[in-house]
Amino acid sequence: MVYLTRRERFNAAHKLWVETWSEERNLQTFGKCANKNWHGHNYELFVTVKGMPDPETGFIVDVKKLSRLIKEVLLDQVDHSNLNMDVPFIPKGMQPTTENLVILFWKELEKHLEGCTLHCIKLCETENIYAEYYGEEG
Amino acid sequence: MVYLTRRERFNAAHKLWVETWSEERNLQTFGKCANKNWHGHNYELFVTVKGMPDPETGFIVDVKKLSRLIKEVLLDQVDHSNLNMDVPFIPKGMQPTTENLVILFWKELEKHLEGCTLHCIKLCETENIYAEYYGEEG
Amino acid sequence: MVYLTRRERFNAAHKLWVETWSEERNLQTFGKCANKNWHGHNYELFVTVKGMPDPETGFIVDVKKLSRLIKEVLLDQVDHSNLNMDVPFIPKGMQPTTENLVILFWKELEKHLEGCTLHCIKLCETENIYAEYYGEEG
Amino acid sequence: MVYLTRRERFNAAHKLWVETWSEERNLQTFGKCANKNWHGHNYELFVTVKGMPDPETGFIVDVKKLSRLIKEVLLDQVDHSNLNMDVPFIPKGMQPTTENLVILFWKELEKHLEGCTLHCIKLCETENIYAEYYGEEG
Amino acid sequence: MVYLTRRERFNAAHKLWVETWSEERNLQTFGKCANKNWHGHNYELFVTVKGMPDPETGFIVDVKKLSRLIKEVLLDQVDHSNLNMDVPFIPKGMQPTTENLVILFWKELEKHLEGCTLHCIKLCETENIYAEYYGEEG
Amino acid sequence: MVYLTRRERFNAAHKLWVETWSEERNLQTFGKCANKNWHGHNYELFVTVKGMPDPETGFIVDVKKLSRLIKEVLLDQVDHSNLNMDVPFIPKGMQPTTENLVILFWKELEKHLEGCTLHCIKLCETENIYAEYYGEEG
Repeated sequence: MVYLTRRERFNAAHKLWVETWSEERNLQTFGKCANKNWHGHNYELFVTVKGMPDPETGFIVDVKKLSRLIKEVLLDQVDHSNLNMDVPFIPKGMQPTTENLVILFWKELEKHLEGCTLHCIKLCETENIYAEYYGEEG
Repeated sequence: MVYLTRRERFNAAHKLWVETWSEERNLQTFGKCANKNWHGHNYELFVTVKGMPDPETGFIVDVKKLSRLIKEVLLDQVDHSNLNMDVPFIPKGMQPTTENLVILFWKELEKHLEGCTLHCIKLCETENIYAEYYGEEG
Repeated sequence: MVYLTRRERFNAAHKLWVETWSEERNLQTFGKCANKNWHGHNYELFVTVKGMPDPETGFIVDVKKLSRLIKEVLLDQVDHSNLNMDVPFIPKGMQPTTENLVILFWKELEKHLEGCTLHCIKLCETENIYAEYYGEEG
Repeated sequence: MVYLTRRERFNAAHKLWVETWSEERNLQTFGKCANKNWHGHNYELFVTVKGMPDPETGFIVDVKKLSRLIKEVLLDQVDHSNLNMDVPFIPKGMQPTTENLVILFWKELEKHLEGCTLHCIKLCETENIYAEYYGEEG
Repeated sequence: MVYLTRRERFNAAHKLWVETWSEERNLQTFGKCANKNWHGHNYELFVTVKGMPDPETGFIVDVKKLSRLIKEVLLDQVDHSNLNMDVPFIPKGMQPTTENLVILFWKELEKHLEGCTLHCIKLCETENIYAEYYGEEG
Repeated sequence: MVYLTRRERFNAAHKLWVETWSEERNLQTFGKCANKNWHGHNYELFVTVKGMPDPETGFIVDVKKLSRLIKEVLLDQVDHSNLNMDVPFIPKGMQPTTENLVILFWKELEKHLEGCTLHCIKLCETENIYAEYYGEEG
């Protein structure tokens, strides 16, 4: 069993804000991330799949096809988007934290992946913060 | 003459959009950067000053003081902000491109810098794009 | 179950030297790392916790609070320190190798962590060497 | 149980090409990677071993000895080589994909490793693609 | 005057070998880089242009157009190529060192650049070696 | 004229402390960098030379020879050293700041460099701080 990882990147705006809370509670909880006019990030996305290399091609998966799938299923929705407003698969009102995004990305991508098994979604929000999801129930 | 550089980071939302243009022309010119709901970046800012090391301290400038000044003058305005809406020193209607930002950052910082000379403002928008300004008139 | 990682950095001096050994044996075993006047490193520390995102905030843990805890419990002791001499939780005579440090860091941090579970301590000594500890007994 | 990782680097040429296939099928499958005059990469290799730190030295393994072993067993064969033509332990006709290389590297290195256990071979082909092997049968 | 830099990447094979020299002299001069079956690199290319930001768009140049031009003029020739054999603008027999490549890249790109001025070609061969050319005669 | 840069790395301990000052003044000026038991860094050193590529070899300088020279003249003195105590070419009592080190490194290296011209010494102390020296008098 070999694990293969593809890195992709996207840029997006977001804010952390619970609609049913007061402005005070939002600012206390989320600090500068609650700025009502948004802020944004360069996100780095690492998709890891696992499988056995094909005896002829040496591929677990054609990495160009994997990259194309990630673009169609994920990046075309989130790149240069507003994560709170623009992305169909992010439920309205759900906070677009890295923790929530890795679960949502997993669910979207796993539906479309063929010929190998999704192992991990890793998402870096800054050089100091990243989240990983391996499909484990809590 | 020695050059000393301090790196700082900030996260912000922006869009590229000329108000007096049609939506079509904006999209044609700016592509995905014209998304009306914004997108954003992790910006890396490199401030370079020059001077002679002090014979006793070996400092051109106390880098902690330089860092504090950059925070007060620049980062407190732009970090977790919307560059089109929230920043007093970015004129309304001016596109917040990296090219424009390095000039604006230079003007703000130079006013407050003491004891050494500003040499360069470098701003990285993504890992593939950055702009530099050395105070040169065009 | 989602894994969230926070990166922190610190700078420290250390040497590798067994007091009960001869200088010759120390130099043979540790090479340049046994220099009696110390050497030092920029350490990169990655703390990974796991848990379920809170349904309202989308947080496993408030990453700013996690960062503050790491600073209080670990960085305030080790940053700009001598790892052989200055750090209360490093036993005198124990070699401050990355392998030993990740175990010691785990024990200190786990005592104070609330609301999520410590998953991994990773410590990079140079760009070519790092150690990881997952709390496993040997 | 602690995990220790050593990074090494090497540069090599390769191409992806199945001898028994037509040129058309090779180009369709491997795209530009099938260029008959080769292309090449700066590979980054991460070798992770696991064990308990020695009570006296604090070492799982002397990382300088580990580095020397990696060089003798792997790098001396693959650095500045043609991976399709020059490397004794890469079977002729097997595609030198990152997926295949991590398995081959594991088999070579594990034979020679003493005093600790091989945990992972990770190989980065570009900043966007890497493979990992943990010795798991498929 | 503002400087704007775009990073691109390509992978290529090459060797250093003077045809009119003996094998011995080639190996003595170029070491492992003279391996007759080639080796290769992941090259990082930084193209810096200078100009004044357009008052309306804030652009020195549309960076997407600059990227497209670099791809057409340079990357389409050198990516996944053999630098000694495949590239029309590299004279046969000229060594494809980073020093020579930056001069050749400058000449190719400058011919096609419109609306801004080429300032620097920087090419990284490994993480430890890079060359820069500013169009200066020797 | 082409510029060629070689990166090298070293690890060292140091502290900032003026002997003729009180402890209070030292702590006030240098903060944590004045810790009497030292701290340390992973330094990254970039040496840039300039010249014309040789028509036969394509080299400004044989980069392996340049690397060997840097090791003999600089790294053998400073690697795994105490910069305040161990290095012959750092005057006792001079603060080993990055600003001072780049000037001292320039003077040492320039004496021994043959066949090309030293252009720049750049030294990174952390990922956020670096100094550069181009041989300019103040």
